[in-house]
Formats: sequence, C-alpha cells, structure tokens
Amino acid sequence: MGSLTGGDPSLLRRINSAAVLRALRDGEPSCSLTDLARETGLSRPTVEGVVEGLAEAGLVAETGVSGSGGRAGRPARRFRFRAEAGLLLGIELGPRRVAAVLADLAGHRLGGGVREVSTRATADERLAGARAVAAELLAGREDAAPLRAVGVGSPGIVGLDGTVTLCTALPGWTGLDLGGRLRAAFGCPVQVENDANAAVLAERWVGAAAGADDVVMVLAGLSPGAGSLIGGRLHRGHGGAAGEIGALHLLGRQATPERLLSTSGEPLDPLDEMAVARVIAEAREGDRRAGAAVGRFVARLVHDVAALVLALDPELVVIGGWAVGLDEVVEPVRRELERYCLRTPRVVASALGDTAVATGALRLALDQVERELYAVGGVSSR
Amino acid sequence: MGSLTGGDPSLLRRINSAAVLRALRDGEPSCSLTDLARETGLSRPTVEGVVEGLAEAGLVAETGVSGSGGRAGRPARRFRFRAEAGLLLGIELGPRRVAAVLADLAGHRLGGGVREVSTRATADERLAGARAVAAELLAGREDAAPLRAVGVGSPGIVGLDGTVTLCTALPGWTGLDLGGRLRAAFGCPVQVENDANAAVLAERWVGAAAGADDVVMVLAGLSPGAGSLIGGRLHRGHGGAAGEIGALHLLGRQATPERLLSTSGEPLDPLDEMAVARVIAEAREGDRRAGAAVGRFVARLVHDVAALVLALDPELVVIGGWAVGLDEVVEPVRRELERYCLRTPRVVASALGDTAVATGALRLALDQVERELYAVGGVSSR
Repeated sequence: MGSLTGGDPSLLRRINSAAVLRALRDGEPSCSLTDLARETGLSRPTVEGVVEGLAEAGLVAETGVSGSGGRAGRPARRFRFRAEAGLLLGIELGPRRVAAVLADLAGHRLGGGVREVSTRATADERLAGARAVAAELLAGREDAAPLRAVGVGSPGIVGLDGTVTLCTALPGWTGLDLGGRLRAAFGCPVQVENDANAAVLAERWVGAAAGADDVVMVLAGLSPGAGSLIGGRLHRGHGGAAGEIGALHLLGRQATPERLLSTSGEPLDPLDEMAVARVIAEAREGDRRAGAAVGRFVARLVHDVAALVLALDPELVVIGGWAVGLDEVVEPVRRELERYCLRTPRVVASALGDTAVATGALRLALDQVERELYAVGGVSSR
Repeated sequence: MGSLTGGDPSLLRRINSAAVLRALRDGEPSCSLTDLARETGLSRPTVEGVVEGLAEAGLVAETGVSGSGGRAGRPARRFRFRAEAGLLLGIELGPRRVAAVLADLAGHRLGGGVREVSTRATADERLAGARAVAAELLAGREDAAPLRAVGVGSPGIVGLDGTVTLCTALPGWTGLDLGGRLRAAFGCPVQVENDANAAVLAERWVGAAAGADDVVMVLAGLSPGAGSLIGGRLHRGHGGAAGEIGALHLLGRQATPERLLSTSGEPLDPLDEMAVARVIAEAREGDRRAGAAVGRFVARLVHDVAALVLALDPELVVIGGWAVGLDEVVEPVRRELERYCLRTPRVVASALGDTAVATGALRLALDQVERELYAVGGVSSR
C-alpha cells in the first residue's frame, strides 16, 4: 500500500477513509468496527481511527451499541453513513422551464420543483429562475445541511469547464459561463452537461437503460438532441457536440417540426409543448389531419433515430422528451428500425419522462461528491 | 519487475525480448549491445542473452562490428531487426474485385495485386480469387520467408471471431466463417474487419487521418459504409454494425444511388464503378443531365456524412471510395456541414484512394504480429 501512495501518509489516510465510507454506505444500515475491518481488509485500530475522523467531519454517526461485540463480552459500537450530512441538487435549464430535484448524499430524492420560463427569457432571468426553484427547495428543509454539489442539464454544446460553447435554443446562452455563474450562486462545485447527455445518464442510473452499456437516448422537443453511452461512458464527441441532431431535418427536405406537425398547411406557430400536445390529442380523438401530422412527426423521429443507430450501433434506444407522451411512437420506431438497420437495437420509452434531465443532473452532482468522498477520501477539510 | 510477471522467468524473458526487438526496430539501422542496454534499461549481459535468442529465432541479424565498442579497445558487434524474417498480407474482398498488398514485418510494402471478380461470384469463387492474388504475390519472392499474418477488409458486419454476421453486398457472404476459411488457406493468424473500418485504420496509419483520434471515414461505393475512430480506437458498435449507413437513403425518400446517378430517368443498371465513372466524366465535359445527377449524388453524400457527424462529432471526416474521384465532392461537403453542424469537423479526401481497404487490412496483420513480437515477446516457438 505504501508504495502506491508514494509514502504520503495523508493520501493513505484518505484512501482508508474512502474505503470505510464506501463500506458504510453500501453495507448494512449500521456496522460495527469489526464489520468494517472485515469489509475493508484494514486493521481494527485503523478502522477505529478513520471512523473517529469521519464522525468529527459529520459524515458518520454512531447508532448505538449491540450486545455481541467484536471482542467477547464487550458491547460493540455501531455506525452508519450520514447521508443527511449534505445536499445535492440536479437542475434542468430548458427552453420553457427550470426544474430541480433535491437529494441527500446517497442520492435519495428529498423533493422537487418546477418553474415556467419564457422561451424569450434572458440568461439572467433563466438563472434567477434556477436560483428561485433551488431556494424554495432548500427553504423547506429543517436541517442546515450544506449544499455539496450541483449538476445542471442544458441544451447546446457544453465545454468541460461548464461554459456553453453554442446554443441556438436559449437566448443569450452561447458563450455563457454557466458553471461559473452557478458556482458563484451556490458556493459549491457545479457540473454542467448537455441536456440529452444528462438524460441518458439518468435512464442508465434509475431508468429504462439500467444495465445497458451502449445506449442512444433521443430527446424529442423544441431543442431535439441525443445523448449516447459507448461502453458505459458518455460519448461527448471531439468538441462536445455529439448527438446535436437538430439539423438533420434541414437535410434534403423541408421537414421542420413546424411543418410536420401542422394541421392547417401553415407552419405551427408557436411550436411549443402545448401546441404539440393539442395536435396529439386531436389525433387521438380521430382527427384525420392531426393523425397525418403525428404520422409525419413519427416518420421524422424514425429518420433521426435511424441515423443515430446506423452511425453508432447501440444495444438500446431510449425515446424521451415530447415523444414519451406518444404511445404511438415506440412501436413504429422499432418496426422501421428493423427495416433499415442491419442489426436492430431494443427500443423503449423513457422511464423518467420529463424528470430525466434533472435526474441526470443530480447524477452528475452525486458523481462529484462520490469523487470527493470515495475516491481519495472525505471532506474533512471543510 | 519480478512482481509484475508473477515470478514467471519465461514471461520475464519474453518482456525483455520484446523490449530489445522494439528498440532494434525503432532505433538506428544497426545497434550495438551497449546501445540496446541504454535504450531498454536492461543490463548488457541480459541484452546479450536476449539478442542471441532472437538471432536463433531469425528475428535479428548481426550487421558486423564497429571500431568504437562499449568497452574500451574492443570492436562492438552490431545488430539489426530482420524485417524480412516474415511476410504480411492485407486483402480487400470487395463486390467487384479482390486486392492484396504484401509487406515485410516492419510493414514496408513489397508488392500488390488486383483481380476482378463478378458481383455475382459465389463465396468459394471470391475466396479462390483471394488465394490466387496472394499466390501470385508470394510466388514472385526469391526468399522463403513465412507468411506470419493476414488481414482482411470485407463489406458487412464482421464478428470478432472473423465470421460475417450479415452482408447484403456479396452473395453467400452472410454467415461465412471468413476468418476460419482463410486461416485454413494461409496457415497463419487472420484478422477480419469491416471494409470501412479497415479503411479508416489505413488513413490514420499512412493516409489523410494521420495524428487524428476522432475520425469518421465514409466509403462511398456499391456497398456504402463508414468507419469511425473514437479516441484513437475503432468504434465497432455493440454488434459490429456501427457505420453501416447503407440504409440511410431508404429513409423518407426514394433516393437510391441508382436513381440519383441516372441521366435517363430510368435507374442506372447495372450500378457499378464504371457506370458511375461514365456519369462523372460526362458531367466534367459539361453534360447538363450528368451534372445534375452528380449534384444529386453529392447531396446524398452530404446527408450521410452530416448524419454521422451530428451523431459522433469527429474532428476529421475522410471521404473515400467512389467519391475520391470526384474533385467536386470535398468542398460541397465541407460547405454544407458548416450550415448544418453546430461544430464543423475538417473534411478531406482519402489519401489512399482504392488502396485504403487493403492497406488497412495490412495494418491489421501488422498489429497481429506486433502483439506477438512486441507485447509479450518473440515467435521463437516456431
């Protein structure tokens, strides 16, 4: 062990600390020092020292004593991971709304909130909306646990530093230092990711893509996009633009969503979730023109999905966004892919629906604290 | 070192042997034992023992002595890598032809051959063509160096074991144990890969994609396809079907190559390289209908390339296959991608043209012997 840490005793302490924390988080609801020594392979005195430190940092609590201890005759002290020692936020910054989910350090959902925002809102107005939703969620808490990390899902190309490289869907978004602005607002680490990328992470975490490593998620909506996992890892592309398929409808024919979904011959204006929901509802009630419009929209979606599937050859396609409301979507996509693709992936609807992006953002926040807590130790420096 | 090899002396010997071979291959034309000890960090006696073994195996030759040796006053023996100790073959098995390149163990090209094959040829006829091209190439050699490895590029989905999972372009190809058949024919390891995948490896090795890690190569032709590198590694997809974009033209409109390239209103029949070359030549001479046909073909290609670029976000797109003959192709593709893609990759024409697939297949054969020779040692067991 000493050689792996280069003889740095504080690094060794952090590695031990991470091992004990992980054992506490993943093990029984409460563990004795003997349990932890067995789980981690560390000596009992080492575990005892680490647990004292973690307790001082607020990450571990003593749950009491049990009769049969590690050493004959002595009652054993038992401990648990204090998931309540910090809070995490996952935020969706979308064209028409800001949504957030609040969770504890174990990723358990504590609450959620949504606020409508105009598609024409400035960047400042949209960020104010995010702060307001977060403030409402945090204000409802009785404890004073600190916010440890925030994850954000947003349309557009997002750089690794959290700056929006390019976004055509939200006014004032291109060039915005989204990560920096939110780090300043929340006073904690902030991870920013493209919305479809966040959504595919969410579906793999707790949704329709659990257990799958090669996944394409299509997010149909005002700002259509796709997020892909290759070998279990997010495929961001050379410049973070992978899956930005919004332009596919421009290619070769005038198949914009506005025209496809029109029942009047004139482009649908404004094109928004409500207008689309109306067309879908009319189609369900048997309206012929609405039925044809939905058919065109599905054909468009099939084209986008097929292009992604032919390029990437995933094992699973998850259809999310607007299309989740369309029971009529998954089966035609599946059928058409069988016609076009040499190897056909499974096709399923999103399990998370309109919570996918915020849930994926929460996963980013959880990844952030797990890197801090479990990779090289605790947050005792706070 | 001992702990990494688990104390296995033969493994340690093979690691040392690989280090010395690599130093000989990559260093000066000839090296002294002192040079090799310095390069590898091994002791001079160890290097001497390894070099003796490699010389016995035929992989190293003594080139003579030089005046100033490692130890004062003694002339130093000098050695070189015997690239001529074995031969490698790269084979393209295409719809209309079989092509092969022969190389030495350093990958230096020694010769090449092509044989036309009917698009209706059976699998046996096509394999006989491959054996015949190989036999001609090998018969021309005066030395009796053994064939050490063969690489093959073929249309269709190819499994990791070298079986063709699915191929619509070549009769009798689906289900063929191509690797097994050729291993039996050539009596050496055979690596089989999809043709476009082989082509992108070739362009990165000695062509237009040198130094690029995120590359999409589009192979326009009778069996259009694409090969992609992500982070420098081939992206094969979950079932080996990534880049099988042949079906994209079926989506949404009747834009088959036969119709796009027609100058008569009737589908081009047969659609082959010669027919396409004729249309291109007519367009160059100013024929209006041929010009329009080429324009439609380029628009189709732009669509395919854009779909791949939007899905993958590569840094570089290489256009190969038929389209290499079209000076008119690269610039329109570049211009159109700038309109459609949020982040535009560089676009270049293939540097290898119709030798790309066979060259990529040769790279696969070279990878195979390098794994044998340089990863865990030599081929002294022969």
